[in-house]
Amino acid sequence: MRLTYLIFSLVLITNLSYAQNPDEKIIREIFDNVLVSKDAYNNLEHLCENTPGRLMGSKESVIAINFMRKYFENLRVDTVFLQEFKTPAWKCYNTEVSIITGKNEIKLRADALGPSPSTPPEGLSAPVIEVQGLDELKALDQNEIKGKIVFFNRPVDLKLVNTFRVYSSAIDQRYYGPAIAAELGASGVLVRSVGTKIDTFPHTGSTGFKEKKIPCAAISTIDADILSEMLKSEENINVKLVIDAEDFEEITTYNLIADIRGSEFPDEYIVVGGHIDSWFNSPGAHDDGIGCVQSADVIRIFKELGLKNKRTIRVIIFMDEELYQSGAKAYANYTETHDVKNYLAMEADAGGFTPEGFMVDASDSIVSLISSYKPLLEHYGIHYIKKGGGGVDIGPLKKFNVPLVGYRTDSQRYMDLHHSANDSFDKVHIRELQLGAGCMTSLIYLIDKYGL
Amino acid sequence: MRLTYLIFSLVLITNLSYAQNPDEKIIREIFDNVLVSKDAYNNLEHLCENTPGRLMGSKESVIAINFMRKYFENLRVDTVFLQEFKTPAWKCYNTEVSIITGKNEIKLRADALGPSPSTPPEGLSAPVIEVQGLDELKALDQNEIKGKIVFFNRPVDLKLVNTFRVYSSAIDQRYYGPAIAAELGASGVLVRSVGTKIDTFPHTGSTGFKEKKIPCAAISTIDADILSEMLKSEENINVKLVIDAEDFEEITTYNLIADIRGSEFPDEYIVVGGHIDSWFNSPGAHDDGIGCVQSADVIRIFKELGLKNKRTIRVIIFMDEELYQSGAKAYANYTETHDVKNYLAMEADAGGFTPEGFMVDASDSIVSLISSYKPLLEHYGIHYIKKGGGGVDIGPLKKFNVPLVGYRTDSQRYMDLHHSANDSFDKVHIRELQLGAGCMTSLIYLIDKYGL
Repeated sequence: MRLTYLIFSLVLITNLSYAQNPDEKIIREIFDNVLVSKDAYNNLEHLCENTPGRLMGSKESVIAINFMRKYFENLRVDTVFLQEFKTPAWKCYNTEVSIITGKNEIKLRADALGPSPSTPPEGLSAPVIEVQGLDELKALDQNEIKGKIVFFNRPVDLKLVNTFRVYSSAIDQRYYGPAIAAELGASGVLVRSVGTKIDTFPHTGSTGFKEKKIPCAAISTIDADILSEMLKSEENINVKLVIDAEDFEEITTYNLIADIRGSEFPDEYIVVGGHIDSWFNSPGAHDDGIGCVQSADVIRIFKELGLKNKRTIRVIIFMDEELYQSGAKAYANYTETHDVKNYLAMEADAGGFTPEGFMVDASDSIVSLISSYKPLLEHYGIHYIKKGGGGVDIGPLKKFNVPLVGYRTDSQRYMDLHHSANDSFDKVHIRELQLGAGCMTSLIYLIDKYGL
Repeated sequence: MRLTYLIFSLVLITNLSYAQNPDEKIIREIFDNVLVSKDAYNNLEHLCENTPGRLMGSKESVIAINFMRKYFENLRVDTVFLQEFKTPAWKCYNTEVSIITGKNEIKLRADALGPSPSTPPEGLSAPVIEVQGLDELKALDQNEIKGKIVFFNRPVDLKLVNTFRVYSSAIDQRYYGPAIAAELGASGVLVRSVGTKIDTFPHTGSTGFKEKKIPCAAISTIDADILSEMLKSEENINVKLVIDAEDFEEITTYNLIADIRGSEFPDEYIVVGGHIDSWFNSPGAHDDGIGCVQSADVIRIFKELGLKNKRTIRVIIFMDEELYQSGAKAYANYTETHDVKNYLAMEADAGGFTPEGFMVDASDSIVSLISSYKPLLEHYGIHYIKKGGGGVDIGPLKKFNVPLVGYRTDSQRYMDLHHSANDSFDKVHIRELQLGAGCMTSLIYLIDKYGL
């Protein structure tokens, strides 16, 4: 588009003309800073390149949290500390899935679900029964299931617009499927990866076992289609499943907490955070390295611009959102035992694409107050602030009546990547990341300034 | 984010619950169709892979427009024809730029601006004078400029939020710089590529010569930084510029027009279009192959769903938006000579990312009427419909008082690619493309149904 510059120059509004009142001016300064700062982007690159697969319990997860601690120390925040806690853990060392037909073995691209048990070292071989969901499985005669590998293959519903809804259209198979199949006597489970693309990436995730556990893994959507086709056209197909994984009854790990002290109400904490852990198969760029580096950027911006916060701004780099949410529970416990007043908590864990809005889980009057800031943020991409869920890591604070805020971004590309090796640093756009950090900082600035 | 599915399943709203009135229902059907259709995406892949560099006058531009003609014929539209017209043209066969320092020659990544004249075959070598903009050039003593290659090197202003504004913060150098430098006696011009990234892609574009023309080219931002550094640290630097290009006084080319006839007002045309031409260096995915395939998809959706349009829906695949806008002028002339009543014209030429909004260039009452449809489209990503420029190709219809509508998408990634080899098919996300076609179709459906 050649002549656009002419059109735009006619209506060109300078940065300053957005800055007609003091709040607009400060917010413009926040974006003037963040849109040319590379700190958050560089931090994310470091996390993705040096500590991929940083599932809670891994060496990488601890290296990553110490990297962020060093970053906060260099920022000269007022306080930075590791909040230690104990939790069960799980590690996956290897996943192999193949189709055995006669003498042929066709390898599929697969990753175990967490916390799948191991198979015997030589693997588990069994015939496969394909179903399109939980109801179809439950309707089967139990004899048809016994000893078999159940293959859940219902695709996502691509007609849904928000890809979190696309995700939820098929996630019941991954979350509830293995437990139900185990109860019905299956020997193992395969799940079609829950994502928006037909490709070769397995997307793992957690599964909710009850008493009985059986080995289970996600296979890529292309491989799910291959397996399904072969089941239709060939007889005597077995699937071989090799999973090498380990449960740990208790390990010691950490959340990371960094504070800049408030000048008027230092004992009131405005929390902002993301989670440092990622699945074992993933660099964890959008889920959720980006939430960590954007949260850290809130403090960087406050310090660089010399913004005076009345309340203490606390960044929490949560451990273990993915498997047991032990970090979220540990911080909530810490809050209770240390009598911490969390004034409000914000979470960034919905991808790092172009900013869209904030969901507020609080009383109507607080939702309405926070919504009233939308006009100040619209220019930067925030086009809704409304009632809704805040997030998994701040969720346990709800019982203490802490208002919760979840940062939301354009979802279209997120489920291509989620919980897979494809969630890598090159999928992150620097300006989208920067705008997000700016929106989070601006809203925290307003909440701190005007109170709730 | 593991537990999101729980949150989402609590608030899960089915597709149907968005379809409480007849318009909501039709719009939901449009998206149910478009979100699983691959026609537009496949058409775009074909255009990018088979006809990159389809600048007006090229063989590729004609192959591309005939490919789209075939697509409309297969859709069994009521009318499809090439609207022939004559225009001057320009071709670029080769661009080479290098820094000459002593015996060393350092090649830079460069593409000629359109319509740059050729250099002599052996090239043009001259000392370089770097300036940060037009004013700095004009303030120089003319003797300092004479015979030299002027190097415009002011970077874009990354602090602006919409990247079309980032673009307009530096585009004066490319558009006006060569003409002004020519008047002041310069022998050639280099321009820092106008884009949002520091990388190796030259971004070309048009330049507005007056009488005097001198060879001119864009160099990549990395190369602009290299040249600038060398000019500071070394003496006796020349730049060698080799451009092989050709002006054509008159060629014959075409817009492509495809109609589905209206049942009540067949002589009233609702126009929707994009431009098929791209710069010679670019596959032209986002600029603007995507606008063409999305516009074509409007007709496909109407036909597949059996929607009855009262007015004729006319898709125009415009030729030559980039260089002389001859296709836009030719359709406006055709409109006048054939007494065509264009009821409204919509253009898609602002990238194919996630939908954002529509700009309406019309009377306040029409702007307000069209804005009133926003609640119907919000679920699909449209969060503003407001007064503003429609677009370059539909612009000449303004003098006939045709209401103009410009489709807008998330701009953050667009200026990374614009007018460069980087504007390739792999940068297009299928769901973002599909949502755009759905939003365009839905708005046209409403305008046709309720009138203006």
